[in-house]
Amino acid sequence: MARLIEELKKLPGVGTKSAQRFAFHILRSSDDDAAALAEAVRGLKASLRLCSICNNVTDVDPCAYCASPVRNQRLVCVVEEPTNIAAIERAKGSQGSYQGVYHVLHGTLSPLHGVGPEQLRANGLVGRVERGEVDEVILATSPTLEGEATANWLATALRSFPVRITRIATGVPAGSDIEYADEVTMARAMDGRREM
Amino acid sequence: MARLIEELKKLPGVGTKSAQRFAFHILRSSDDDAAALAEAVRGLKASLRLCSICNNVTDVDPCAYCASPVRNQRLVCVVEEPTNIAAIERAKGSQGSYQGVYHVLHGTLSPLHGVGPEQLRANGLVGRVERGEVDEVILATSPTLEGEATANWLATALRSFPVRITRIATGVPAGSDIEYADEVTMARAMDGRREM
Repeated sequence: MARLIEELKKLPGVGTKSAQRFAFHILRSSDDDAAALAEAVRGLKASLRLCSICNNVTDVDPCAYCASPVRNQRLVCVVEEPTNIAAIERAKGSQGSYQGVYHVLHGTLSPLHGVGPEQLRANGLVGRVERGEVDEVILATSPTLEGEATANWLATALRSFPVRITRIATGVPAGSDIEYADEVTMARAMDGRREM
Repeated sequence: MARLIEELKKLPGVGTKSAQRFAFHILRSSDDDAAALAEAVRGLKASLRLCSICNNVTDVDPCAYCASPVRNQRLVCVVEEPTNIAAIERAKGSQGSYQGVYHVLHGTLSPLHGVGPEQLRANGLVGRVERGEVDEVILATSPTLEGEATANWLATALRSFPVRITRIATGVPAGSDIEYADEVTMARAMDGRREM
């Protein structure tokens, strides 16, 4: 029991009290339920891995995006984390949803936290570009300090190859009044204006 | 006293209680202070008018922007309200602050509220473009339903003239994580991506 409580306490936001509650719940539940939970936990690590092409979390390798015959495998959208892929998949633009593939960095450059270029999983991307497998790299890291630094570093690293390098637009969010845009966002919206 | 309270109650967000507090404050203040307030209120309407060129609120006609010899009078940024000018003036981009002039529409198209093209103050802008006085019109209405409709209408109205028509960028705000961008904003950020 004490061993289970110690293990449960390692979950984010779970303290001794919650861990004890969880442990007693498991104690009271049926043998099948306990076995199912144990198997699900064990199975997660056994079945999930990173896609060998794009680093996305997947249960088959290559992942569904990289293996898709209908997606444009020469259009690669670079994101910070696997969860960012969902945000881009949800987005439906005037030309429908995104039809390219992804590359997950699993982080951003952050000198303060000791994350340099070698800690990012960018080699796979650079390799694909080097081998001429990519027409366009969309840098979809967040427009934060770290995300911008990462985008700039990647753009520099890829500049010598014949590939189109683009950055997602920073600007006033849809549905928002320009009155509420901060100075940097407003400046980016003006700098990034497009022909109509 | 009752008359003053009635007049003060017409101010936005001022009810009977606040109006009474204001009235008693004025009653207790010196004759000079009361006279200064009365004169300031009267003077506002007497001295402020709309710029005959850009419709900005001004005390001299043409306004400081339209009369400026250092601003690019051939670059016109179209905004909904005079207060929007401050938001754009505050924005400092990579090329410094905005160096063009403005055109204030005093509203947006809003069929539901009975605001059609003829209710907007757009004639002055169309005239300037018609006379070949403008190189670029930046449509800086908000990326709201009404703001977009207004921008589209203006773009159509100006399309027959040899003028560059641009729209401010919609996208993920600076400093924000793409995880928090709504679907429409994310789609616009992808559609509006730029070469790096």
